[in-house]
Amino acid sequence: MPRLAFVDGRYVPLATAAVGVEDRGLQFADSIYEVVAVLNGHLLDWPAHVERLARNLGELAIPAPLGDAALSQIARRLLAANRAREALLYLQVTRGSARRDHVYGPALRPTLVMTVRPFDFAQRIGQQAAGVGVVTVPDERWSRCDIKTTGLLANVRAKQAARGAGGFEAWLVGDDGTVAEGGSTNAWLVTGDGSLVTPPLSPRLLPGVMRGAVLEAARARQIAVVERPFTVAEAHGAAEALITSTTVPVLPVVRIDGVAVGDGRPGPVAARLAAAVWERIAAQTGYCP
Amino acid sequence: MPRLAFVDGRYVPLATAAVGVEDRGLQFADSIYEVVAVLNGHLLDWPAHVERLARNLGELAIPAPLGDAALSQIARRLLAANRAREALLYLQVTRGSARRDHVYGPALRPTLVMTVRPFDFAQRIGQQAAGVGVVTVPDERWSRCDIKTTGLLANVRAKQAARGAGGFEAWLVGDDGTVAEGGSTNAWLVTGDGSLVTPPLSPRLLPGVMRGAVLEAARARQIAVVERPFTVAEAHGAAEALITSTTVPVLPVVRIDGVAVGDGRPGPVAARLAAAVWERIAAQTGYCP
Repeated sequence: MPRLAFVDGRYVPLATAAVGVEDRGLQFADSIYEVVAVLNGHLLDWPAHVERLARNLGELAIPAPLGDAALSQIARRLLAANRAREALLYLQVTRGSARRDHVYGPALRPTLVMTVRPFDFAQRIGQQAAGVGVVTVPDERWSRCDIKTTGLLANVRAKQAARGAGGFEAWLVGDDGTVAEGGSTNAWLVTGDGSLVTPPLSPRLLPGVMRGAVLEAARARQIAVVERPFTVAEAHGAAEALITSTTVPVLPVVRIDGVAVGDGRPGPVAARLAAAVWERIAAQTGYCP
Repeated sequence: MPRLAFVDGRYVPLATAAVGVEDRGLQFADSIYEVVAVLNGHLLDWPAHVERLARNLGELAIPAPLGDAALSQIARRLLAANRAREALLYLQVTRGSARRDHVYGPALRPTLVMTVRPFDFAQRIGQQAAGVGVVTVPDERWSRCDIKTTGLLANVRAKQAARGAGGFEAWLVGDDGTVAEGGSTNAWLVTGDGSLVTPPLSPRLLPGVMRGAVLEAARARQIAVVERPFTVAEAHGAAEALITSTTVPVLPVVRIDGVAVGDGRPGPVAARLAAAVWERIAAQTGYCP
């Protein structure tokens, strides 16, 4: 059975799934997206993703292509059709197709694309034990990084540069020297007194669903949490550092630009938070890595 | 005969022309584009567009999909097939299609899309006589606006806001108060002593093909030219202001945020430059509006 995608009202083979060349998603990056983890056949944190999707559609004044219930039904049918157990569900909504012009009229019908691809979450266990390196790069992005748009070329360039320099992830550093977030993850550190620090929500960073889950897990475990900016220098001197995202979900950062963080090994706070997140995943989906 | 497009090696009806849902142009705005004027059936300034395309491909390390000669041949065949007289040729090159991941491998084959749509250049004559209004908006864009990528959502938002406020174009204003460029045009003013001013090339603005042509025309006509930044306040007090682009090509700006520029009517320098550009167009293509 070929892998299936959902495009604009129809289930179609992924291999031939396509959008028109005048779709504004292709011509203007006039679109938003979500990536949702599928574990043990279940969608993780689906309501939070649907809520963020709605907020982002509102930011761009794109009408919702479907109601939440219909969206959920399509997502679940797509998982079933693809027999997806451990996978990533990708969902993109564009403003629709029109003769090319920056300015858009009121009558456009949004394009909805959904795809599912297998994803090996268990690979993260080994990375969690070893830790990963990050490489800092100047933040080239626009001033509304809180909107999850497909205008991701700066993120692509950052992550490609980081990978080329031997890093797993890029950390995007603003003109003020503070870290906004990673190329596709949120950024964290742990101070000498055991407090967890992450930049506060602002137009410089995406409100990650996993970011919210980790904040909640930390507070539930009496780990002090401070939402404030931090510099690369502070991260270098931190006890621990970590990154979080739907696909990561929690990974200790043991090197920043080749310099060891703390003793250069994954620390206890990252381990506690990772354990908490796997527990959360197990509770929601029954998945155990 | 249906309108034809060129996609990935084939001439196909525009109505059904499509790219795969995992094309990186759609998922990451990992692509560049050109818009070329077609006048009297001829491509205007084609070599300059091909040269810029090559430079932009180089910036993003996307391999050229075809040699320049093949590209020209396809463009001309597409014009002929569509019997295009006055039109816009749109050309987009994406990094290609791959399972979604910010980081890309070396083996991707770029996607080439070309479309042609009729365009009424003669409408500009009336606008030239009346002048247009611009509306200033904060520049939300990324830090590499010199690369002509399809990551245009900030431009879309700017132009949509300007149009909503009764303006024809948006002027994008940086944190330092200077105007970078328009949402899809370059920005100019004329000082009290008759000098032409436009911001110098930098990562904040696109090196417009028409910008180059207007600079050349001005110098050939002994109009003093200064490439330096200018503020909105200076533009308000200027003798004249104008915008240029492939589709405009030269339009006098008579209002900025509702405030008249000079005496609120198109000025003599804009008229001379517009005449020079129409002469250039006539010389290259035989087109007279």
